[in-house]
Amino acid sequence: MSAIKLNIRIPFNGDTALGPGKVDLLEAIVTTGSISAAAKSMHMSYKRAWDLVNMMNISFKQPLVITATGGKHGGGAQVSDFGLNVIQIYRQMERQALEAIDTTSIKLMSELKQE
Amino acid sequence: MSAIKLNIRIPFNGDTALGPGKVDLLEAIVTTGSISAAAKSMHMSYKRAWDLVNMMNISFKQPLVITATGGKHGGGAQVSDFGLNVIQIYRQMERQALEAIDTTSIKLMSELKQE
Repeated sequence: MSAIKLNIRIPFNGDTALGPGKVDLLEAIVTTGSISAAAKSMHMSYKRAWDLVNMMNISFKQPLVITATGGKHGGGAQVSDFGLNVIQIYRQMERQALEAIDTTSIKLMSELKQE
Repeated sequence: MSAIKLNIRIPFNGDTALGPGKVDLLEAIVTTGSISAAAKSMHMSYKRAWDLVNMMNISFKQPLVITATGGKHGGGAQVSDFGLNVIQIYRQMERQALEAIDTTSIKLMSELKQE
């Protein structure tokens, strides 16, 4: 039996939201130190990753990712302290939500046939 | 500012899960009294709706939807007491999760620029 999946989306800028995809991308930038390497690790185009980063940066009061200029694909990128805090808060929300539904979800899953 | 979206998926039968789509479909069957009318109200094909119902019925220990035979598209359909209970538990989980992240999500949203 696989685990429960929980997808939390914080809406901003009309149809866009901060969801698991953007947070995964932020974490990949932390790990790899660049948007292009993060994109590659997530099998995403550089353009797509850059667009997502840009959308986050213009939607929050402070930038989440600081990009260095120069070099192919604009050099390295760093997740700001503010961005690190956003990651941390988002993951905390996920943990809080999963914890809150723990008992109820076990009750529901007990009604499924055993695989 | 639109509301937070939360998508909880209870996995079963490999790649499938009980998520908001199937629960919405169950509720539409309660409202309309048939799978075909429920499918129509959700802009879904009858075949797709029937497949989803069938998948739920064979995955849980008891059927969630009881179909009547006869007539075009097999007559009416009724959500069983068991199915009503599954709907209720799923919606309860959503409320529990949203309540659990209420404070944290407000904190995160306060970091967004005002639209």
